[in-house]
Amino acid sequence: MPSTSYVDLVSPKVTSKSLPAVLTIAGLDSSGGAGIEADIKTINAHGVYGLTCIAALTAQNTSGVEAVEQTSIEHLRKILKKNFEDFIEGYPGDHPLKVVKTGMLTEAAATVLSENVDYLNKNDVKIVMDPVMVSTSGVTLTDNKTVQLCFDKIFPSTYLCTPNYVETVQLYQAKKGKAPELKTLADLEKIIVELQQILECQNVLIKGGHIPWTKDGQLSEDKAGDDLVIADVLYESQADKITIFRSPYIVLNNTHGTGCTLASSLSSNIAKGLTLLQAVPLSVNFIHSGMLSLSLKLGHGHGPLDHTNIANSSVQSVIKGSDTIAKDLKDNHGGALGYFKNHKVVKDNWKRYTEHPFVELVATNKLPFDKFLFYLKQDFYYLVNYAQIHGLAALVAPTYEQIHAQAEVIDNIMKEIERHKAKLLKKYNVDFDNADLDSELQPAKPCIEYCDYLLKAGKTQDFLGIKVALAPCLHGYAEAGVFGQGVRSKHDGSLGVLSSEDESEVYGSWLDDYTSDWYTEAHELGKKVLDDTIAGTGVSEQRLDELVEIFNDVTLLEISFWDEIVNSL
Amino acid sequence: MPSTSYVDLVSPKVTSKSLPAVLTIAGLDSSGGAGIEADIKTINAHGVYGLTCIAALTAQNTSGVEAVEQTSIEHLRKILKKNFEDFIEGYPGDHPLKVVKTGMLTEAAATVLSENVDYLNKNDVKIVMDPVMVSTSGVTLTDNKTVQLCFDKIFPSTYLCTPNYVETVQLYQAKKGKAPELKTLADLEKIIVELQQILECQNVLIKGGHIPWTKDGQLSEDKAGDDLVIADVLYESQADKITIFRSPYIVLNNTHGTGCTLASSLSSNIAKGLTLLQAVPLSVNFIHSGMLSLSLKLGHGHGPLDHTNIANSSVQSVIKGSDTIAKDLKDNHGGALGYFKNHKVVKDNWKRYTEHPFVELVATNKLPFDKFLFYLKQDFYYLVNYAQIHGLAALVAPTYEQIHAQAEVIDNIMKEIERHKAKLLKKYNVDFDNADLDSELQPAKPCIEYCDYLLKAGKTQDFLGIKVALAPCLHGYAEAGVFGQGVRSKHDGSLGVLSSEDESEVYGSWLDDYTSDWYTEAHELGKKVLDDTIAGTGVSEQRLDELVEIFNDVTLLEISFWDEIVNSL
Repeated sequence: MPSTSYVDLVSPKVTSKSLPAVLTIAGLDSSGGAGIEADIKTINAHGVYGLTCIAALTAQNTSGVEAVEQTSIEHLRKILKKNFEDFIEGYPGDHPLKVVKTGMLTEAAATVLSENVDYLNKNDVKIVMDPVMVSTSGVTLTDNKTVQLCFDKIFPSTYLCTPNYVETVQLYQAKKGKAPELKTLADLEKIIVELQQILECQNVLIKGGHIPWTKDGQLSEDKAGDDLVIADVLYESQADKITIFRSPYIVLNNTHGTGCTLASSLSSNIAKGLTLLQAVPLSVNFIHSGMLSLSLKLGHGHGPLDHTNIANSSVQSVIKGSDTIAKDLKDNHGGALGYFKNHKVVKDNWKRYTEHPFVELVATNKLPFDKFLFYLKQDFYYLVNYAQIHGLAALVAPTYEQIHAQAEVIDNIMKEIERHKAKLLKKYNVDFDNADLDSELQPAKPCIEYCDYLLKAGKTQDFLGIKVALAPCLHGYAEAGVFGQGVRSKHDGSLGVLSSEDESEVYGSWLDDYTSDWYTEAHELGKKVLDDTIAGTGVSEQRLDELVEIFNDVTLLEISFWDEIVNSL
Repeated sequence: MPSTSYVDLVSPKVTSKSLPAVLTIAGLDSSGGAGIEADIKTINAHGVYGLTCIAALTAQNTSGVEAVEQTSIEHLRKILKKNFEDFIEGYPGDHPLKVVKTGMLTEAAATVLSENVDYLNKNDVKIVMDPVMVSTSGVTLTDNKTVQLCFDKIFPSTYLCTPNYVETVQLYQAKKGKAPELKTLADLEKIIVELQQILECQNVLIKGGHIPWTKDGQLSEDKAGDDLVIADVLYESQADKITIFRSPYIVLNNTHGTGCTLASSLSSNIAKGLTLLQAVPLSVNFIHSGMLSLSLKLGHGHGPLDHTNIANSSVQSVIKGSDTIAKDLKDNHGGALGYFKNHKVVKDNWKRYTEHPFVELVATNKLPFDKFLFYLKQDFYYLVNYAQIHGLAALVAPTYEQIHAQAEVIDNIMKEIERHKAKLLKKYNVDFDNADLDSELQPAKPCIEYCDYLLKAGKTQDFLGIKVALAPCLHGYAEAGVFGQGVRSKHDGSLGVLSSEDESEVYGSWLDDYTSDWYTEAHELGKKVLDDTIAGTGVSEQRLDELVEIFNDVTLLEISFWDEIVNSL
């Protein structure tokens, strides 16, 4: 008889989420590096649900294509029908399918897609077309009939078309009868506008591939040199706006499937609701990471890239910072905090937060004491999370001093909790010595949302982004303290709704805390860390906008936190 | 003319890695939840490279299958040939393809696979068979000829076969002519052994699916109740060992593709080199996470599960801990530290580390001073990383006190660095005030490996695992300090290879540091945190083995760290 043993497993802890979906119509590369398999890997790595419609099955590997079996038009029709029934139709609210992405199309696939483009446009499903016409090995993959269907019906319904240089020339030539002249980046600016007019699609991204440019925008003949860049060029026709994304030029072997992967990554980012200006740098970063991360090349031809990296979801780490902007913040805005809180998006919210009615009610003894205790419990729960995110900040801190500074902040927060919150709550019969934080403190929705936001920032942001997410709490309470003291100084000293001097003293000392020396010191230190961090790495305009958004999001979360109390009165 | 702007992107920072590969042979579910698409998503989420061989294209969705188009046998042969050429043949060392996983097989696919099983066995490619015979909707997917091919050729060459209950009954019946009796878990123990003998494969996992059992191993008629469990039963024929993995029973809707996903997850974990006892709990956890994490159900039938979770790679968080083991550690081993350092795997290494020749050389003034300075630089670099991992520990600390304790530890470490290391190095003309740690300190290979190990532990381990990885440094230095003082007390006081009293004093004070009150206190606190953490969550036998492995790994890294210095003499 065999021996038997038991192993008991626990239920997994998961964060509940909903997934947007992308459907990819393309050929399938059985060696897994390109086509539908690359698409599915990429889409999944972006936290998006992938569906497929296979136009053809190839027998291929990294060295070449051996055979192709096309899917019949009837079967393609059935596949799309089943997928649309399940992912577009019958949802009470938004349907999950946001983007249809195309790669290599057979005539049958182009026909079935062209039958459906009006339906997709009507249902707000965006079409992203990667106009795959020639394989890396030089084989023409698309016949004339298919090309004609694309021009007549599909391109004009397309949200984004993503040709590489070779495809750009082919598409241009098909309509203009001659190849475009391309020697400088300025030529490319002209070409992309003409191409958009030819295709009649909404946006065009000409993929830089591995064509090196000099810094001043000339095609480089030799393929070496530190100063060379590659350029991905985006034209948004509605805004009439060209954006040129430059990346360092690196010679790489793992290039099999880069085109498919970039288009799938873009489709995923678009499905998640990002703008093209956000999506393009993130997607370029995703394929560059995938090309760089494999130490063992797979296959014997052009190796596939690595799709197992988690897709970056913050533009910060992919765009080069500018020293000029960092200097401007310091010289003209009183540092980063000054810039954020006075930014037009934030300014009114910042005032709503730092002069919140909650503070006024406390300062004038008009907040019922049980409401204040409820606030303290919420704040206790929040502060524990707040301290933990500083732990994460210590992990990713770029300098030695900043690691230490994070530890000091945690220490301060824990002491604040212990001295002021825990003691006070205990005094008023709320005991946490052995409390399970979640069940005992029962965090309300605004508190949970705030903590979730910080944790998400901790997972997706760099040190600077995390510090900005933590900033409104630190600095806002300092300003709210000053505001409250101002109000209290004019107060008549009456007990208001409170029942004892003791309670009034609690309110007074709460305000004293945030105007105390130690708090003011922490407030000043926090400002310095923000400024030093920005000075250390520089910041791009786009990144600065992201930071403003984070600062504003958190300011709104602070307002909700206090609104919860005030609205319950 | 459109407006043009430039955005400069940075090169991505990536960790170089090599990917093992899994090839899946199965049908394709175009709605993305089952079959090959589920396989590819799952394999990629495990950090493994996925290749495919599509036996049939279905037009289906979560509500049912509408049509199937089979791939021709010639095309299947070409696909496998191209994939084997590229992922098995022609590698100087190990080839990347580790596992071939099968799902729904057509007759053609079963034929082509049976032609290749000997080749795969010869090349150490393991076969994992998910014997998909009936769809969840009850349609028989496999014909008799295919079943016969499986019995004759494929099952006997298979490493792991993963039937669910229904498939178990079918396979049993096909050979025995009658259904097995199944009322208790004990029945299942008999059945799995018989099934292995029928199939002649090496290992069998009967998937628990959603069949609820009572705690005492009876089939439960009603499908509700807190005490119900599901059971995944593994039989390893070579060891003649049955392991029953029990998980809490939960009623779930997102079940489309769970069978495929489990088999792919197992294949991926096997490809990564895990044993079945490690792979099964991790893979069960992966599908349970996927079933629980979707807040918005996708599709209108049985919804697919979520494949975008990152696969857990540590058994710790999936196996329930035992209080008995925690108590035994405390009562009979002087706590966790005592258990680890005296464990038979660790014991000799622990002695080699805490009585390392490096310490002896320092204690007797026989270590050349420049070598000591080199060590200090390495240690400086290491300690900064060590402090940061405590930041991560603060993030995942389960209790409020432990968050605070982590902050205190960071504070201690940073003070240790500042007082003892930085000052000393500065005195001897090594200045770090504005140093870039990586370039100025030039960490040697053992130092980098150690830091990498800690960071990896930080990413994959829970709080307990991280603390165990951090433990050998903290506690070993305390013991090494005592050992060194003992040696020094017998030393004749001569300068040895040193050139001044000053240098001798540095050596003395280095030893004093690790026998000082503050260090001894930290050492005791660290022991208590380990014990409290284990007492708080319990620990399974398997987990305890994992922790011993971590403790031993890090002990060896400590030895290398000092070996580097001593070997350079």
